[in-house]
Amino acid sequence: MLKEFPLGREIDRPSAESAIESFREKLSAQQLLLKEKKLPVILLIEGWGASGKGSLIGRLIRYLDPRFYTVCTRSVPSDEELRKPFLWHYFTKIPQAGKIVLFDSGWMEETVRSVESKELKKRELTERLDGIRIFERQLVENGYLVIKLFLHISREEQKKRLEALEEDKNTDWRVTKNDWQQNKHYDKQLKRFDKYLEATSVPWAPWHILDATNRKEAELAAFRIVTESIDRALERRPGSTPLPKTEQFPLVQMPLLSKVSLDKTVRSDEEYRTQLKSAQKRLRELHNMLYRKKIPLIIVYEGWDAAGKGGNIKRLASALDPRGAEVHPIAAPESFELSRHYLWRFWTRLPKTGHVAIFDRSWYGRVMVERLEGLCSEADWKRAYHEMNEFEHELVRWGAIVIKFWIHIDPDTQLERFQERQNTPEKRWKITDEDWRNREKWPQYEKAVNEMLRKTSTQFAPWYIVESKDKRYARLKALNTVIQAIETRIRDDEK
Amino acid sequence: MLKEFPLGREIDRPSAESAIESFREKLSAQQLLLKEKKLPVILLIEGWGASGKGSLIGRLIRYLDPRFYTVCTRSVPSDEELRKPFLWHYFTKIPQAGKIVLFDSGWMEETVRSVESKELKKRELTERLDGIRIFERQLVENGYLVIKLFLHISREEQKKRLEALEEDKNTDWRVTKNDWQQNKHYDKQLKRFDKYLEATSVPWAPWHILDATNRKEAELAAFRIVTESIDRALERRPGSTPLPKTEQFPLVQMPLLSKVSLDKTVRSDEEYRTQLKSAQKRLRELHNMLYRKKIPLIIVYEGWDAAGKGGNIKRLASALDPRGAEVHPIAAPESFELSRHYLWRFWTRLPKTGHVAIFDRSWYGRVMVERLEGLCSEADWKRAYHEMNEFEHELVRWGAIVIKFWIHIDPDTQLERFQERQNTPEKRWKITDEDWRNREKWPQYEKAVNEMLRKTSTQFAPWYIVESKDKRYARLKALNTVIQAIETRIRDDEK
Repeated sequence: MLKEFPLGREIDRPSAESAIESFREKLSAQQLLLKEKKLPVILLIEGWGASGKGSLIGRLIRYLDPRFYTVCTRSVPSDEELRKPFLWHYFTKIPQAGKIVLFDSGWMEETVRSVESKELKKRELTERLDGIRIFERQLVENGYLVIKLFLHISREEQKKRLEALEEDKNTDWRVTKNDWQQNKHYDKQLKRFDKYLEATSVPWAPWHILDATNRKEAELAAFRIVTESIDRALERRPGSTPLPKTEQFPLVQMPLLSKVSLDKTVRSDEEYRTQLKSAQKRLRELHNMLYRKKIPLIIVYEGWDAAGKGGNIKRLASALDPRGAEVHPIAAPESFELSRHYLWRFWTRLPKTGHVAIFDRSWYGRVMVERLEGLCSEADWKRAYHEMNEFEHELVRWGAIVIKFWIHIDPDTQLERFQERQNTPEKRWKITDEDWRNREKWPQYEKAVNEMLRKTSTQFAPWYIVESKDKRYARLKALNTVIQAIETRIRDDEK
Repeated sequence: MLKEFPLGREIDRPSAESAIESFREKLSAQQLLLKEKKLPVILLIEGWGASGKGSLIGRLIRYLDPRFYTVCTRSVPSDEELRKPFLWHYFTKIPQAGKIVLFDSGWMEETVRSVESKELKKRELTERLDGIRIFERQLVENGYLVIKLFLHISREEQKKRLEALEEDKNTDWRVTKNDWQQNKHYDKQLKRFDKYLEATSVPWAPWHILDATNRKEAELAAFRIVTESIDRALERRPGSTPLPKTEQFPLVQMPLLSKVSLDKTVRSDEEYRTQLKSAQKRLRELHNMLYRKKIPLIIVYEGWDAAGKGGNIKRLASALDPRGAEVHPIAAPESFELSRHYLWRFWTRLPKTGHVAIFDRSWYGRVMVERLEGLCSEADWKRAYHEMNEFEHELVRWGAIVIKFWIHIDPDTQLERFQERQNTPEKRWKITDEDWRNREKWPQYEKAVNEMLRKTSTQFAPWYIVESKDKRYARLKALNTVIQAIETRIRDDEK
């Protein structure tokens, strides 16, 4: 895309100035429309070193209300960032509805740089690009506008600018060794950029290449693209047309809940205690190994109310070193969470490599409570199965072990436990009117859960149905499932 | 405190076991009371290397519900952390009401280590300890329970444990060079610990020294202290007794708002444009210098509705490099913010060194809207003046420039602007029913603002009243005030 791109066209300065002025007014008015229509905008600005990304951003925002935008700069990633999935840094920074985030270079720059440094091998690059396409597509499908600009300059122009920056002692610190490297190997770098641009230019998030030889021309083009894109997005109805998916994931077949026999028990308390102790001991050792091998572990707990999720999690968590494990209780989203992509609040809670995150309820709320209570549109929850598979696929590619438990009981057992909670003062806080209301919708929930298990039990992140009529059985089963998953993984890694 | 502490007492194992069991049940029941009474608990566990902090934490939480607690481990600070104030790492991690955060070593360890490495000079240590005392006192006054345990072992015991850890290949990575250093210079380290303990043991957050020679004994003592402290805190009524303050801050005298003349104007639009342009240019240069000198700048904007805050901020922000500046619009707190110390949501938004944070409304909401709308108790807002001074003092000691603007108009000007907003379609979103309601309370607000200006205009973080009947005048004044503050600071630093 870059190779054939003509650079250095002449422009008419005064007419550019006045055009910019009118676009600026337009953008200023669009801010309020964004707010009103709750449209979030991501503006990614990439380009060559010294192509003027920073100063372009400065001009774009000059007349924006600072309450409506944020600028994110790509800086040297911290140790913590390096221990998170690649997209974590970007996903956690997406705007709320009605706001704009400008990325002063981002996932493109980081990717191309990793290719350059040979950190990313060929297969990894393919995966990376795939993840990026999914990231952008998910954003668009969830109502985000994604605008991507690439500032292009020639080798000679870049050299001239780097030299000028170096001559001024106020700006010399901005020129890095990397910039000069880029200039020296300009042609190679151009090929890398091109390959990236081609791989990620899609109709719903196309690349716009800007001739940045002349700053005014680049500014004018940027204003035009941004305002036009916003106009189009304001007209578009979000989620109206599902976008093409890239991949089908291999599924594990799951039984219908009604076919699951709940009569599994542990023979005696003594047997339970002995087995619990030895499983916890084994898990403690394995946590140590995960830590040393820097493998992250993500465990999802879903299940019926009163199925025994809490007690089950407790047995698992207490076997882990608390310095490297965290339980995330997931309640109804707060408004700052609701105003972003629904997976945002889970991305922000991902563990570091070597750590364990246990989700006490999870993103699967989308296809259960949010679906049944009408908290999202039908298109939203229907799309979510694949989105969640993609999300977990990304986590697994990053290196995580992902395990999902459905803690299962039957309606009679639930009724017994509800009544017991009601009658026991220390347990009464655990039972609310909502629990009774949910109980009435058991058949609808069962249908939704069956659909969820069927559609999201992938081979890389399968569901495990944990029979929990006997809670002791359920605890041992969950512990042993986790132990087995870790052992299998460690064995596979050593092959 | 440590020197005279007797170590190595014999205990009766079976009776310790049964006592621990009953404390454990008590703690388990207390969780629900914490939740019910919305009491947040901070449990700081410090001590010698290999004294068993981690395993003690493991035992304390074994029967706690993972939804109620988090464990924070002190790890090597990231670059980002190093560019924040010392207490940032801890303040941002305080629990929500009803929850427990266990710190696996924290601000004590970090401080003593900085003394050891000679990073902290004598005067800096004094300031550091002062900041820590304020931190803990503010937490307690705002309803937190702060429990501090120190695990003490002898030099010989430590040596024995380090050797044992090193012998096992599963644990050898836990022993650091630092641990052996500590053991080698045990006596010196003991003195440093002692000094810290003495300086920070206060009745509302006392230190508890535990003999950790015998793990069971330490566990028993920890359980006893934790459960007893929680019992006492549950009985205590928060904020009922103000705690002794350490310091009075030098104030700048402020005029009453009614004495401020609002007839200041800029002669012509042309003069405004010229001056604006040159001030923005100067500020841009200065931002560069702040960045290079790593000086953080914090600017607070408060003012009457329709006083022109937004436009004023825009002129300031657009002169800054957006990669190093952020505007934080402060709205009513969301529930995850309300359930923490009211300064938490500002601590989490502090800039890095060399960066600028502009607060569009701020912590001063406490003594204005929260006071007048009864959103906090009288004791809360009365205490807040000093707390906010302490907060800003800490920021200044860290190295920040703190500037606070009161954007001022009179009631007639406000009425005119409200009417104009009402009558201009593009501006109508800016005016709400609440604005009209607030307007009716002008006299009460004026009284509150006068009190705020009088009590919180410290010499290190003064208020500036910005006359904004002529918005152009106000913009230039704010810009020039910021410029002057930066220039003064840079000059002082160079002396």
